[in-house]
Amino acid sequence: MAQLLHLAKKLSSPYPWTSSPLIISAPMRVMSGPALAVAVSRAGGLGFVGPGLKTQNIIKDLEEASNLIQKSPILGAQRAPSSSQTLPVGIGFQLWADDIDTASSAIKRFKPCAAWLFAPRNGQKDIDTWSRRLREASPKTSIWVQIGTVAEAWSIVESSEKPDVIVVQGAEAGGHGRAHDGMGLISLLPEIADVLAAKDVHIPLVAAGGIADGRGAAAAFALGASGVAMGTRFLATDEARIAHGYQAEILRASEGGTSTTRTQLYNHLRGTFGWPEEYSPRTIINRSFVEFQAGRSFGELKVAHDEAVKKGDEAWGPEGRTATYAGAAIGLVKEVKPAGEVVRDVRGFVEGIFGEGRRMKL
Amino acid sequence: MAQLLHLAKKLSSPYPWTSSPLIISAPMRVMSGPALAVAVSRAGGLGFVGPGLKTQNIIKDLEEASNLIQKSPILGAQRAPSSSQTLPVGIGFQLWADDIDTASSAIKRFKPCAAWLFAPRNGQKDIDTWSRRLREASPKTSIWVQIGTVAEAWSIVESSEKPDVIVVQGAEAGGHGRAHDGMGLISLLPEIADVLAAKDVHIPLVAAGGIADGRGAAAAFALGASGVAMGTRFLATDEARIAHGYQAEILRASEGGTSTTRTQLYNHLRGTFGWPEEYSPRTIINRSFVEFQAGRSFGELKVAHDEAVKKGDEAWGPEGRTATYAGAAIGLVKEVKPAGEVVRDVRGFVEGIFGEGRRMKL
Repeated sequence: MAQLLHLAKKLSSPYPWTSSPLIISAPMRVMSGPALAVAVSRAGGLGFVGPGLKTQNIIKDLEEASNLIQKSPILGAQRAPSSSQTLPVGIGFQLWADDIDTASSAIKRFKPCAAWLFAPRNGQKDIDTWSRRLREASPKTSIWVQIGTVAEAWSIVESSEKPDVIVVQGAEAGGHGRAHDGMGLISLLPEIADVLAAKDVHIPLVAAGGIADGRGAAAAFALGASGVAMGTRFLATDEARIAHGYQAEILRASEGGTSTTRTQLYNHLRGTFGWPEEYSPRTIINRSFVEFQAGRSFGELKVAHDEAVKKGDEAWGPEGRTATYAGAAIGLVKEVKPAGEVVRDVRGFVEGIFGEGRRMKL
Repeated sequence: MAQLLHLAKKLSSPYPWTSSPLIISAPMRVMSGPALAVAVSRAGGLGFVGPGLKTQNIIKDLEEASNLIQKSPILGAQRAPSSSQTLPVGIGFQLWADDIDTASSAIKRFKPCAAWLFAPRNGQKDIDTWSRRLREASPKTSIWVQIGTVAEAWSIVESSEKPDVIVVQGAEAGGHGRAHDGMGLISLLPEIADVLAAKDVHIPLVAAGGIADGRGAAAAFALGASGVAMGTRFLATDEARIAHGYQAEILRASEGGTSTTRTQLYNHLRGTFGWPEEYSPRTIINRSFVEFQAGRSFGELKVAHDEAVKKGDEAWGPEGRTATYAGAAIGLVKEVKPAGEVVRDVRGFVEGIFGEGRRMKL
């Protein structure tokens, strides 16, 4: 328990505007824009800007986040030890696809408080390289590394370039995660915590995957997490950078065990190739996948997909055809809210479950 | 919160010897024998005897449980409203394979405090039939029904023969569970709780699957469970009815995401056919599965399997060939303990997390 308190403090101390328990919005590619990230940090959480379609695009996003914060400062952010230097939002990278030089120079210029690294082409080796480069570019930017297996935790333990934070993503997560060797958070997070403890490595864990409300968040803290990240829940916020049709489908869908699946199909339909084979995305099932399973050719599906995309919002939904990345907890997301309200609701529920007094003893 | 307190009381009140939070040993076929079930109930938990190889076999097991309890009564069991009539252990049935007449007459004779129903051939229809028959045979035996999908929760909500308890099994569970539409507990349990709440159905939920210590148990309570069942953790107890080689493999294995899989192969190698297609078992991977994936014929694998089985304890382990059903939380099980100690440790951890005072407010 003392160890968990220590880790929770270690996690949150570089982000003095945040409230405990720490609620985080995940860096969803494109959809986690500056408005969402800033709204989450403004509510005492930690918001991440997602990777861009090109690495170059994050410059505009970080600039916008910076402007939003300058216009209306975040209470407490000025108390940061590195106050004048770090931006109170984080930034995410997909290592296999992002350009390390562009990333480094953006980090150097904007100094986001954290960089969340995911999906290396060459495992820990690439993570180490990125960690070194980004630390050189901005020593006060914390390095977060997302993993989804116990084996990856062992790689971190053995690395000399250890991250400041480990994000443990369970198999229920939406978007990209482990393709074949994922595991539910309820079993995965404690085993990873045990690996670190056995090797006397004291890195706080942030839980991700399948969490969409206070119950899942409280469960994650009980498992040993020091912070909780949500993705899908933040797609249904006013600030998400998301098409109306996509957001409507997030509200409609339920029963993630049957309504979502992991498949590379939608990446390929959208023209995205080259993801390392360890990863595949969880998406809400629609006509493309149903017809794919029924044996329709990729060529035909591609034509139908591209036609559907032209129709705008109709491209999503059960009769739609395009990627609708979302987590298995989709059935818990029923309402669009301001992102700050999501943060405060989840935090409040967790405080209630554990009790104001006991919370910090976790 | 008031609703959760109500449900926790509703769950435990027929079992007055139990302590809150309620810890349950799952009815694992053959391996959950009378010694294990009685030890768990004796520690203030609720122990289940598993289904037998034949339904007839449970008679001997319930008789033995009854004798163990008569020899050394369980403190508090005599305070049961139905004290002189119910046995302070439960019994499990696999509906597709078990014989309803034999089951009813055994229930009538021994009056176990609960009957845990799982794996019907014809969904809710069979569950309803079994529930009716067992209630007629022993009105004070509570009916527990195990599900693993939101759809099954909807079927229960619409049934006129509702169970007393719903066991929600997440995809990480060992042994048989949902083959294709399972979901991690962290997303599944809250969604099922929401379905019941929306329909004003007040049935307590027991969480199962991927829980092997206090952390997972505490997480399950945070998600909305009123009780927690464990299987794999109880395989590593002094009282489990398990071969030494099997138990040694439970201690050895870790990283359930890669070391376990769901497959019908081992059922077939053991000569078990006919499981409804909705289900498949999670097992620790050994040579049979590795060679099966490499393309070796079933006939050859069967010969090698049967040879291995003759060698006793060597049939298990990474170089072994027989079924080693276990959950994805296998990496959390590192030590054989008395079952009562498992119950007390897990209960104590959960109490500590939520605080003595707050616990009942859950």
